[in-house]
Amino acid sequence: MAFRRMAVSIAAAALALGTARAESPLQGEWVDLTHTLDETSVFWPTAKAFHHDAESFGQTEGGYFYSAYNIRTSEHGGTHLDAPIHFAEGAQTADEVPLDRLIGPAAVIDVTEASGSDRDYRFTAQDVLDWEARHGEIAPGAIVLFRTGFSKFWPDREAYMGTAERGAEAVAQLHFPGLSEAAARLLKERDVAAVGLDTPSLDYGQSKDFIAHRVLLGAQIPGFENVTNLDRLPEWGASVIALPAKIGKGSGAPLRIVALLPKEE
Amino acid sequence: MAFRRMAVSIAAAALALGTARAESPLQGEWVDLTHTLDETSVFWPTAKAFHHDAESFGQTEGGYFYSAYNIRTSEHGGTHLDAPIHFAEGAQTADEVPLDRLIGPAAVIDVTEASGSDRDYRFTAQDVLDWEARHGEIAPGAIVLFRTGFSKFWPDREAYMGTAERGAEAVAQLHFPGLSEAAARLLKERDVAAVGLDTPSLDYGQSKDFIAHRVLLGAQIPGFENVTNLDRLPEWGASVIALPAKIGKGSGAPLRIVALLPKEE
Repeated sequence: MAFRRMAVSIAAAALALGTARAESPLQGEWVDLTHTLDETSVFWPTAKAFHHDAESFGQTEGGYFYSAYNIRTSEHGGTHLDAPIHFAEGAQTADEVPLDRLIGPAAVIDVTEASGSDRDYRFTAQDVLDWEARHGEIAPGAIVLFRTGFSKFWPDREAYMGTAERGAEAVAQLHFPGLSEAAARLLKERDVAAVGLDTPSLDYGQSKDFIAHRVLLGAQIPGFENVTNLDRLPEWGASVIALPAKIGKGSGAPLRIVALLPKEE
Repeated sequence: MAFRRMAVSIAAAALALGTARAESPLQGEWVDLTHTLDETSVFWPTAKAFHHDAESFGQTEGGYFYSAYNIRTSEHGGTHLDAPIHFAEGAQTADEVPLDRLIGPAAVIDVTEASGSDRDYRFTAQDVLDWEARHGEIAPGAIVLFRTGFSKFWPDREAYMGTAERGAEAVAQLHFPGLSEAAARLLKERDVAAVGLDTPSLDYGQSKDFIAHRVLLGAQIPGFENVTNLDRLPEWGASVIALPAKIGKGSGAPLRIVALLPKEE
C-alpha cells in the first residue's frame, strides 16, 4: 500500500502543475482502447455481424454534399460492453450501468506470457495476487484490464478466436484465454468497478458454463470485451473511461473505451 | 481572461486536494448528458428509427440465464455524433474524429429565453459574444454546448421537433432552434473542438441549406445532437467527454456524452 500512496501523491503534485497550464482535469495524453467497428470486426460465431448500409452519399439537389448510413449489429461484437443482464436475470441493463462503474483507475494485469504459450489459458487468482504484490491490493472501484496480447491478431478470426467458421458448430472450436472462476471470485471480493480484456469473452474459448461471466455480471460488475492497445498502459497509474451506447434494456452495447495516461513526473 | 485564469487556479488547487484523496484525475461528480436510446428516441422524420430485436432472453439448457439483442438504427438518431463527413466530402468519418475533439472544457451558452419564445430561433454571434463578456474569449479546444431547454420535451416528437409526422413531407414542419450561420462562423474562428446542443440538429428546423452544419463540419468540427441535462452544468468549469461508437466510415454514430463537474471550492 505504501508504494501506491507514494505514487498517488506524486501524481497529485504533477496533476496540479498540469492543470494550471491546461484548464481541464481531462487534459493529458489519451489512448484509444477501441477497435474500429466495421464489417471486418470479430463477432461471436453465432452473432449477427456488423452491417453498414448507405442511405445517402454524394451531392444533393441543394448543392451540398451529404452522407448518412444505417447500422445493424449484435450488441456483442467488436469492442463492446457486457451489461450485467447479459448473464444475470434482473441485473442492470446497458443504459443502467452507473458511470462510476465505467470511470476509474486502471489496473492492467499482464498475462501475455502464459496466454502466448497456451491459447486455453485461464487467468488465475495468483495472476491477480502477483500484480498486488507489486502495486498493493486492488482498490474498490478500480477497472481491471487483462492483457493477453491477443489484440495483435485482430481482425484475423482464426488467429484471434481459434476459428474463422460461423454458426453453432464453430463454438466448440473457440480457443482464446479468459478468466478462471477463482480470478473472477477474487475480483468480485475486491469490489472492482468493471473487468475488461483483449479477447472476445471474459470466459476462455472452451468454457461451457460461462462461470466468469456469471460471477462478475451476477455481482453487477460489467465486462469490456475485445479491448485493444493495452500495451500502451502502465500496470497502474492510468485512468479509464468506457462509455457504451446507452441502449435501453440492452444486454450489451458498442463501447468506446479510452485511457488517460499518468502525467509525467 | 482574468476571471478565467482565477477560476482555473482555484480549480487546480481544489483538484490537487481531491486527487490526494481519490487516486484518479477522473474522480468527481459526473453528469450523463445522454438520452437513453430506444424505440421512443426521437429521430429525423426521414431516418430509420431504432429497433431492438431479442435474440435470446431466459434460462438456457446450461442452467444459467442469458439475454442478447440485435440493434438496427440510423447513425443519426437519439443523442448522436455528426461526423464531419456527414456534410463535408472527404472530411473525417466517425472513427477518425480525434479524441482531442471529443474531450475538453465545456462552454455552456444559455439560449433558453430566446428559444422559449421563438421555436425558430437561431443562436446569434451576439449570444456567443455575450457569453465571452462574462467568461473571456472561448479557448481553442473548448466544447461549446448550446442550451435551448428543448430537452425537456423529449421524447414528445411534436413538442421537441414541431411535428410527430414521419417521411419527407414532415421535414417542412420542423420547428426547433439551432445555430445561425454567423454563430457557426464565429465558433469556427474560435477554433473550438466541437459544438453540441439539446435539439435534433445544429441547424434550426426550418433550414433548407444546412449552413451551420456545412460551416462547422467543413472545418472538421463535429456536432453533438439531442444532448440533455445541460441545465446541470455551469456556464464554464465543467469538462466534457463525448465518445461515439467507433463506426468505420461512419457519417455519425450513437454518442455517449458525459461531463465532469468542477470541484467544489
